Amino acid sequence: MPKLNLSNRDITQFLQPDHCTSTLEQKLSPNFARPALRLTPSPYISEKALSKRWEKIGQLTDQEILLDEQTLKNATLYNKNIEHFIGTVKIPVGLAGPLRVNGLHAKDDYLIPLATTEAALVASYNRGAQLITAAGGASAMLINEGVTRTPVFLFESLIDAGQFVAWVVTQYDHFKRIAESTTSHGQLHDINVNIEGNHVYLIFEYRTGDASGQNMVTIATNEVFHYILENSPHTPDEAFLDGNLSGDKKANSHTLRHVRGKKVTAEVHIERTLVEKYLHTTPESMSRFGQVTTTGAALSGSIGVNAHYANALAALYIACGQDAACVAESAVGITRMEVSKTGGLYACVTLPNLMVGTVGGGTRLPSQKACLELMNLHGNGKAKSLAEVAAVLCLAGELSIVGAFCAGHFSRAHQKLAR
Amino acid sequence: MPKLNLSNRDITQFLQPDHCTSTLEQKLSPNFARPALRLTPSPYISEKALSKRWEKIGQLTDQEILLDEQTLKNATLYNKNIEHFIGTVKIPVGLAGPLRVNGLHAKDDYLIPLATTEAALVASYNRGAQLITAAGGASAMLINEGVTRTPVFLFESLIDAGQFVAWVVTQYDHFKRIAESTTSHGQLHDINVNIEGNHVYLIFEYRTGDASGQNMVTIATNEVFHYILENSPHTPDEAFLDGNLSGDKKANSHTLRHVRGKKVTAEVHIERTLVEKYLHTTPESMSRFGQVTTTGAALSGSIGVNAHYANALAALYIACGQDAACVAESAVGITRMEVSKTGGLYACVTLPNLMVGTVGGGTRLPSQKACLELMNLHGNGKAKSLAEVAAVLCLAGELSIVGAFCAGHFSRAHQKLAR
Amino acid sequence: MPKLNLSNRDITQFLQPDHCTSTLEQKLSPNFARPALRLTPSPYISEKALSKRWEKIGQLTDQEILLDEQTLKNATLYNKNIEHFIGTVKIPVGLAGPLRVNGLHAKDDYLIPLATTEAALVASYNRGAQLITAAGGASAMLINEGVTRTPVFLFESLIDAGQFVAWVVTQYDHFKRIAESTTSHGQLHDINVNIEGNHVYLIFEYRTGDASGQNMVTIATNEVFHYILENSPHTPDEAFLDGNLSGDKKANSHTLRHVRGKKVTAEVHIERTLVEKYLHTTPESMSRFGQVTTTGAALSGSIGVNAHYANALAALYIACGQDAACVAESAVGITRMEVSKTGGLYACVTLPNLMVGTVGGGTRLPSQKACLELMNLHGNGKAKSLAEVAAVLCLAGELSIVGAFCAGHFSRAHQKLAR
Amino acid sequence: MPKLNLSNRDITQFLQPDHCTSTLEQKLSPNFARPALRLTPSPYISEKALSKRWEKIGQLTDQEILLDEQTLKNATLYNKNIEHFIGTVKIPVGLAGPLRVNGLHAKDDYLIPLATTEAALVASYNRGAQLITAAGGASAMLINEGVTRTPVFLFESLIDAGQFVAWVVTQYDHFKRIAESTTSHGQLHDINVNIEGNHVYLIFEYRTGDASGQNMVTIATNEVFHYILENSPHTPDEAFLDGNLSGDKKANSHTLRHVRGKKVTAEVHIERTLVEKYLHTTPESMSRFGQVTTTGAALSGSIGVNAHYANALAALYIACGQDAACVAESAVGITRMEVSKTGGLYACVTLPNLMVGTVGGGTRLPSQKACLELMNLHGNGKAKSLAEVAAVLCLAGELSIVGAFCAGHFSRAHQKLAR
Repeated sequence: MPKLNLSNRDITQFLQPDHCTSTLEQKLSPNFARPALRLTPSPYISEKALSKRWEKIGQLTDQEILLDEQTLKNATLYNKNIEHFIGTVKIPVGLAGPLRVNGLHAKDDYLIPLATTEAALVASYNRGAQLITAAGGASAMLINEGVTRTPVFLFESLIDAGQFVAWVVTQYDHFKRIAESTTSHGQLHDINVNIEGNHVYLIFEYRTGDASGQNMVTIATNEVFHYILENSPHTPDEAFLDGNLSGDKKANSHTLRHVRGKKVTAEVHIERTLVEKYLHTTPESMSRFGQVTTTGAALSGSIGVNAHYANALAALYIACGQDAACVAESAVGITRMEVSKTGGLYACVTLPNLMVGTVGGGTRLPSQKACLELMNLHGNGKAKSLAEVAAVLCLAGELSIVGAFCAGHFSRAHQKLAR
Repeated sequence: MPKLNLSNRDITQFLQPDHCTSTLEQKLSPNFARPALRLTPSPYISEKALSKRWEKIGQLTDQEILLDEQTLKNATLYNKNIEHFIGTVKIPVGLAGPLRVNGLHAKDDYLIPLATTEAALVASYNRGAQLITAAGGASAMLINEGVTRTPVFLFESLIDAGQFVAWVVTQYDHFKRIAESTTSHGQLHDINVNIEGNHVYLIFEYRTGDASGQNMVTIATNEVFHYILENSPHTPDEAFLDGNLSGDKKANSHTLRHVRGKKVTAEVHIERTLVEKYLHTTPESMSRFGQVTTTGAALSGSIGVNAHYANALAALYIACGQDAACVAESAVGITRMEVSKTGGLYACVTLPNLMVGTVGGGTRLPSQKACLELMNLHGNGKAKSLAEVAAVLCLAGELSIVGAFCAGHFSRAHQKLAR
Repeated sequence: MPKLNLSNRDITQFLQPDHCTSTLEQKLSPNFARPALRLTPSPYISEKALSKRWEKIGQLTDQEILLDEQTLKNATLYNKNIEHFIGTVKIPVGLAGPLRVNGLHAKDDYLIPLATTEAALVASYNRGAQLITAAGGASAMLINEGVTRTPVFLFESLIDAGQFVAWVVTQYDHFKRIAESTTSHGQLHDINVNIEGNHVYLIFEYRTGDASGQNMVTIATNEVFHYILENSPHTPDEAFLDGNLSGDKKANSHTLRHVRGKKVTAEVHIERTLVEKYLHTTPESMSRFGQVTTTGAALSGSIGVNAHYANALAALYIACGQDAACVAESAVGITRMEVSKTGGLYACVTLPNLMVGTVGGGTRLPSQKACLELMNLHGNGKAKSLAEVAAVLCLAGELSIVGAFCAGHFSRAHQKLAR
Repeated sequence: MPKLNLSNRDITQFLQPDHCTSTLEQKLSPNFARPALRLTPSPYISEKALSKRWEKIGQLTDQEILLDEQTLKNATLYNKNIEHFIGTVKIPVGLAGPLRVNGLHAKDDYLIPLATTEAALVASYNRGAQLITAAGGASAMLINEGVTRTPVFLFESLIDAGQFVAWVVTQYDHFKRIAESTTSHGQLHDINVNIEGNHVYLIFEYRTGDASGQNMVTIATNEVFHYILENSPHTPDEAFLDGNLSGDKKANSHTLRHVRGKKVTAEVHIERTLVEKYLHTTPESMSRFGQVTTTGAALSGSIGVNAHYANALAALYIACGQDAACVAESAVGITRMEVSKTGGLYACVTLPNLMVGTVGGGTRLPSQKACLELMNLHGNGKAKSLAEVAAVLCLAGELSIVGAFCAGHFSRAHQKLAR
């Protein structure tokens, strides 16, 4: 296939943005746009621009693969989710389950759609799901919620910083009113202060309803941020809408102990015979493996301890229109396996950073919506359930992979004896 | 839409696996399968099983959305990448670029396909790419490579552990031969020992050619692992193929300093006027923001310091058939921005955990292959270039988001003055 | 000198404890003793036991060195601070200062007694102190206080754990009354809950007045702990008085962001000419060094960023009868240096884990009391000031060492040019 | 007692340094002084200066307490260990032991001198020591050694950095010769490179014989550092002798996995009856406590997992003339407790950052030397043994405190039943 001669490097203007450049800056940063600017009606995806793009890149690859008939038909639906659209990538989806969840919110047997290109992943989660269901299901409990934006204000001196903080603490109710005026579902439920020399970080924490909420908290906090800049008797030398205490798109120790998005803990009690039947190993070996790998995690400087939450979360987030980049922060937590008093296996997971939503963002797109519908988890009132399902799915994966590691050892013993 | 009555909970056997259960255990764990077991020719995706699945779930959602014509036609291509297949989820792809990379390996202007459902993401990376290209491109340097598996051996006492280690160190050449007999491209280039009481971790580190290499290192290490268990004069009480020192699917401090996959550092020097033109801010403000958020990262207990590598990597990995779960480990590193001696902006990123490949895994699938082809990065000899491109893409994103945060502040000042 | 033949290994009973063995267990663990048990009047240090000890170890070293006349005379004063007493080790004390502190609580020029055996340490802190004082002093602000004990309760299931928590939250006022009945100065000001599967951690946080407070919070929490075990309608399978969330004697990310003991932030603005005069370098170089070493800290997986707080804190804690083991947790925080708007140096430190007290513990002993008196910081009402002084002392040390590193480089340039 | 009126703030010149100011800068920074500058023969401690100091501070406290007869007599001995000397602080010393160590290097029953002002500390370590000795002693194994200095070189671009590294790797033998020319015992055994954008960190790692070695590695590296600056064909824009990768005086994740100073692992197997007799609890409870607190450590973002190494190390370091500030880095590691196959307790500790020496520094001072002599661990050829003893001492403390926490719970049950 002939390759477009990019080495001429004369193509700086190659891509024609679909939208008016005057609004570019605002669009570029979801983290900063004031709400009014988001109403710009110009369609991101125009037929003309799409066609023009393919005229040029058509030499590089086969257009129909990315811009197939269905994609072309639905192109306008991607309007609010992508810029410089050229088509869709197709990720195969497999089902794991049924997975029985006995949650505070999620109470059902779920078929979980997982989108991945990694062989054996769906099979592994399916095995864990079968085991949990055979054991009567896993308990799950949503125990905390909160998404933050953390503006930072730079003063000349500690004294100025202190006076600023003294003013801020008188404004809480007012800030809450301003923040909540920008959203119908979000609630500002806490503001914390962190002083570091002459810098003041304010941590605005929200409940975000059924949306994962990153944009919601950005818009709401931005409104308060501007109010502060315009009304504070103590003008900072400089200020930024986020000072990197939020944990957005980054694993960190703080939110492991606290929360980002939704915090769920989930557990299952499994009889010894089921462990043997499904995993071909014993609770003792799995408990031992759990302890050794916990030490391994500590030696590596991991945040928390788990085997592979990221596999579950990436596949579920991609299938269900969640923000796949949040795997960075969501894939932390604590897995624990023990021999129970009755000789069975006790296993639990705690995931404090589940960033999931059942409205907004990618959940509106056809195939993503279909995947949520498969679990009856699309739309209002479903986000808490989705979080609990995600946690139990991670638990299923931990059981399956730990079982495989343990059985491997035993199969080795078998081989040796069989010689 | 009528919902399948799952609450009856009588559907434990609902999903018929496509493949023979006798090989299930091996398939479940990519981390444990001995190579011979992978040759099982039975197709994962049979028409009959697929049809049977939709018979049942058809009540839950619209079949055509997931199992469209193109997907159905290509179904057998997903053979080695998914189990319990029901269709594909479509992720919209937008282009960012051209992005000029002056790398050790990647030397070109790249159009980067990004698959995401998050509005403004492509536009933001596109802005950063335009800026880098306008500045003459970013330098990039692959500086380390290595993927590990880290088996652990449990002994009764420290003395046994010590004697085992004494034997191991005499076997390095032999282990290398055994490991490399399982792979045509992988090279075992280091074995380290970590002793913790009566536990011994062996860290096998490989160069994996153009594959991301997780399966390769698992298979190769498994072969050595079994050799050890069968031949060591000091039999461990228990042993596991991985003791959680590898950093697989987990951010950790160790691989931030060392490497997992490919380590790339990339930089760009940007004239002041370009910063002003493209980002509407100044090098001073961006440098200041960089310092404040570095402190913010430290306060949060982050691993490394960055703004949002995860956004770039998730979108690129999904588009290009990479393992999206590796965002968990890949999205760590160090971003640094400074005012240069000539008053411009110096910006660099260092990403030590890029898990990318241009052969194998999801890179074989039609739309993923198309995305790699768009960059002329599909197939043999391209993985190092892909790593360098990924790093520069992250750099583009850091520039764009930091610029947006900084310009926001200035626009605020403007508003205030305009009243 | 002849050595006691220990290799016979017949001396298991060598040391005669001074106190009744029946109270041994309680004495052993300051973390667990119920208050009543602490009243045991038997003297730890009896002349007879002391003499008997030296009869045996006299062959190993010179008795007078450790058991000099002054020590012998004061022996009974060590009663409550040591067991199996054989004498004292003498740590040389040097003075650094005067150090001008403009704090919320500490407002004076302090001569700081530092006990160390490391050459150049006192001189380095003295240089920093001189500089700070010449610059008009450092501002310091105590911004948070809190010492925790964190009992953990193990249940069979998540449901039991949840019901237990539901009961706990109804008991806060009661717990507060019980806890505060054990102490005249301590105040229980917060109780937090952390659920991890079927385990519940309760975080009891106290204000501890002028004592560093570890024993106070242990005794108070123990009282509540026993009340819970005796009165909770939900009996745990097992429970421990501390589940390792307190950060006692351990650096950790959580208390970097929050507090352990006292959190102080301190800063100084220094004119360029003073930097040049005292440190022979420039604000620019020091700011640059600060940025490079911040990156270095991130690469190493440090908790926070500092150069050598531990040197100041160990020397001050030893001189002043503080718990020197708390250097482990106290020596974390954030140092930041920047060029100020007027071309001078801005430097600040934030230390969130200062474990200091001016009553109780080692502050009662003669030479330790003398060191506190030198600063007029012995006794009631002085702990907050001591914390602010400790922070500014750390700031002095950061300035001096960073200055030395920077001047070194310049002296190099000088050498080169002089050839 | 009348207080010197410091609030006049007219006492900037209050302290007369004992030494010539022209050498001040070099003395201030042990981290930077070139060796020649250390030979200055002027005594730090002159009678006249000492007397002048007390003339002024005599109003603040009782001179004899700090400057007692013995101290006064030995004043000149403190010559090389302190500046601005005013006397000594007396830390009470108690003995714990005998502690049986079956090490690679340490093979004896040791009486351990512990200097502390914290009640119950010696008794607790003594209990643990008795238990270990009764169990036949603890095995200990020194498994790694290394102390680093990590200079950093700042270039304009990645390309310059790369060329510099290319030159460096040709110079290893030469660097080794230069470094080792400054020391009779130190050996440079490794140089690593870490590139971050246009910054290059070189990690020089040494074996330091029987000295703890911080000064040795500083002086040796400084010599190479200057050689580089004078001879490299690629001149950096700026360079610093340490870029904060060394872990000096700071806990960090990197040296937990690697080494700083000496890495020792130690273990003990204890019969169930001994656990019951000495600790009044069971192996099961201790193992369970170990697991719960390991999770607690992970939740807190600790580096490694331990209960209170810092208590042992601070008390031992102070008694034995070690650098007490190194508690910051030494007090990390991994403690693990398990029920053994025979129903007893297996316990081990791994401490990778033991900074100990038996020559140089504080080990020369009379009372510190006496404490080392008590263990027959003063002087040449003893540092490895001291490291192994330190690790086993930490093990003793872990056993005692964990036992106390566990027995507490059981005593609770007892109380409840007794009502």
